[in-house]
Amino acid sequence: MKKLLFQLDTDPIPNTFDTVVAYDGGADHVTVLGGVNPDNVGRLVEGAIFTRAPGNKKFTALFITGSEMAAGEAVLEKITRQFFGNFRVSVMLDSNGANTTAAAVVASLRRGREIAGQRAVILAGTGPVGQRAAVMLALGGATVTVTSRQLARAETVCAALNRRFQVNLGAAAVDNPEALTAALDGAEIVLATGAAGVTLLPASIWQSHASLKVIMDANSSPPAGIEGIELSDRGSLKYDKQCFGALGFGGLKLETHRCCIEMLFEANDQVLDAERILAVATELASRVHN
Amino acid sequence: MKKLLFQLDTDPIPNTFDTVVAYDGGADHVTVLGGVNPDNVGRLVEGAIFTRAPGNKKFTALFITGSEMAAGEAVLEKITRQFFGNFRVSVMLDSNGANTTAAAVVASLRRGREIAGQRAVILAGTGPVGQRAAVMLALGGATVTVTSRQLARAETVCAALNRRFQVNLGAAAVDNPEALTAALDGAEIVLATGAAGVTLLPASIWQSHASLKVIMDANSSPPAGIEGIELSDRGSLKYDKQCFGALGFGGLKLETHRCCIEMLFEANDQVLDAERILAVATELASRVHN
Amino acid sequence: MKKLLFQLDTDPIPNTFDTVVAYDGGADHVTVLGGVNPDNVGRLVEGAIFTRAPGNKKFTALFITGSEMAAGEAVLEKITRQFFGNFRVSVMLDSNGANTTAAAVVASLRRGREIAGQRAVILAGTGPVGQRAAVMLALGGATVTVTSRQLARAETVCAALNRRFQVNLGAAAVDNPEALTAALDGAEIVLATGAAGVTLLPASIWQSHASLKVIMDANSSPPAGIEGIELSDRGSLKYDKQCFGALGFGGLKLETHRCCIEMLFEANDQVLDAERILAVATELASRVHN
Repeated sequence: MKKLLFQLDTDPIPNTFDTVVAYDGGADHVTVLGGVNPDNVGRLVEGAIFTRAPGNKKFTALFITGSEMAAGEAVLEKITRQFFGNFRVSVMLDSNGANTTAAAVVASLRRGREIAGQRAVILAGTGPVGQRAAVMLALGGATVTVTSRQLARAETVCAALNRRFQVNLGAAAVDNPEALTAALDGAEIVLATGAAGVTLLPASIWQSHASLKVIMDANSSPPAGIEGIELSDRGSLKYDKQCFGALGFGGLKLETHRCCIEMLFEANDQVLDAERILAVATELASRVHN
Repeated sequence: MKKLLFQLDTDPIPNTFDTVVAYDGGADHVTVLGGVNPDNVGRLVEGAIFTRAPGNKKFTALFITGSEMAAGEAVLEKITRQFFGNFRVSVMLDSNGANTTAAAVVASLRRGREIAGQRAVILAGTGPVGQRAAVMLALGGATVTVTSRQLARAETVCAALNRRFQVNLGAAAVDNPEALTAALDGAEIVLATGAAGVTLLPASIWQSHASLKVIMDANSSPPAGIEGIELSDRGSLKYDKQCFGALGFGGLKLETHRCCIEMLFEANDQVLDAERILAVATELASRVHN
Repeated sequence: MKKLLFQLDTDPIPNTFDTVVAYDGGADHVTVLGGVNPDNVGRLVEGAIFTRAPGNKKFTALFITGSEMAAGEAVLEKITRQFFGNFRVSVMLDSNGANTTAAAVVASLRRGREIAGQRAVILAGTGPVGQRAAVMLALGGATVTVTSRQLARAETVCAALNRRFQVNLGAAAVDNPEALTAALDGAEIVLATGAAGVTLLPASIWQSHASLKVIMDANSSPPAGIEGIELSDRGSLKYDKQCFGALGFGGLKLETHRCCIEMLFEANDQVLDAERILAVATELASRVHN
């Protein structure tokens, strides 16, 4: 029985990243559909759950992709509400690669230190990766602040995540050096998840910072989101702080992604979202050499 | 040589049902294209008929899908008109699953009784499945009435089918209990093919009906289209009538669908529409235990 | 590691021709995406170049298709500009099949004669195949004239090609018999690449022509673009001139196309456009019996 993955992308033109990783993760065939939304996904779910015998339903799976996490969440919700009894297939949400990237960030961090009780700041954290990393850190027991240039934007995002994941993220506006210094006061962990091309944290601030112990930059194209961090930093000690660049957790991200694809086909009732994907990354980080 | 199936869907977002069954029916690769219509299908046909050597053309096939049967019929007609000489590939039409579903209904019925000379009523029969079932029963020699709440709708549908398939379907309006009783008068077979959520035939009417012998409900989600019929009824005797629910012929439908996919790749000149698909279902029903 | 080809089509509905040939050329899976343009191709490139380890990047490739060559060229330019370091995959451009068709035309011609120093006329040569054939002949040392009913159209096309490929194509208006005779004066080679249904060159002109030695018609559906040429002509001598019809070089075109697909997966830095594709067709023509 062939392992069939349906990549349901919320953008008009589906992305290629998830298709390649799906094949490398063991899907036999990936069928890619763009423009998927809660209104049209119903028929796609029917075709997935009604076509194979009970014992074979696990060989069909759904993977929600696209650039917008909110769009992906809405599709996931609609899909899982449509399942009933054994008429279900496994499904994973990874819009913008945010779950796997955030999971790799947090799992990399966890290898070096316990995150419970730590204070973490996600700079420019209202995008998909920042949001998911904030949630994963909070679920692990950290006290997390999400910053944005606009307070209202940060507050809206935190409120939605707090509701959805039962966490307690704090919001902060950071649009000048003083606000940045205030936000970082007492923090052990800083993660930058801003747009490419914007440097969010000058070297002078973190290199001499009293409490910061871990500096992580998720930005994958120069210039760095955190000045002085290199793409390939993978826990390198700089100024006595552990530093990570995007390539430093990129391998773990891809491995997590591939491993999740494999899991989708092991049973027909998996729902892989933030928590489960973080668990996979953490397990992989603990036993491999990323 | 790989067996390549092109799933040409007339909806903007192609469905997944036909893709899964295509793989399970033996296609090596299914390429799924949405938004197909008579105006843009020409290039798709060219690519199918001009790319492989004569002996290998049978390894390319076309499968027309989508929610609208009229749209599918128009695409089929355009495709077959474009073929010439040996520049052709096999093609199947199953918009909305209507041909395979109707074929499974009619073949299930035929296992128990001869349909020639019987009187059959298709309740709410103007949708794709109802239309195709009406045609298949009529081609088998039954006298068929298609009902709709609006007489004009039923008449339009019957006129089109009578022209296309050279049959003689009758139309009737059924929008009240008296009209329902009148429509069923003298009928041996009743089939309900209405929208989900509408009960078309109360138990009190069929359970005590003088002439009805077979009660079939194509509706696959509760409530039943015919009160008292269960999804899993597969010829169960109730009140001395043979009863069928959607799951009762669902297995035969899927098997018919898969078998038709196989046939597409056996020669490059197959055109699988109502008649051929019914023949497949009938043959399968006669030898297997659905 | 699976060989993954992404067929990036600039039309809304991708074509099937290139998909079939991609499978026959050895791609393990072809993912077909329509509506691709320079503005949305960026994410598609990222997914191709960032997902596999350095040694495995050659197992991912991009193939640009669609009916408009200018649209394909713009996408190719955007793609190659996005590559950096080893973050690249092989890519081929064959919008409208123009590169492979033109390469097969020119390579067929070259088997019989040296083209350097010859004078060639491309009738109705402003379409994709005509343009690419003109360029390939010019790169081989021929003196080439591209005709159109409108002088301005021919001049615009020639100016763009001369800039892009550093050649020196001439433009001529041909909208009456006298202009046709003038354009062919002294030419050894004539190739017709007009739209189906238009006869561009009457038999009476070429059969008695003083200088013409090779008569080629790229039109694949009757009536012939050049009167008296048959689809299957493959170097047949008629009136002492070598004649070619579309099927005469169709086999070489398909073989060239398949061979290029194979090459895409041999290294991750191939860019297959006019020059490289012509080299493939020339090599194939020299050793096989097309």
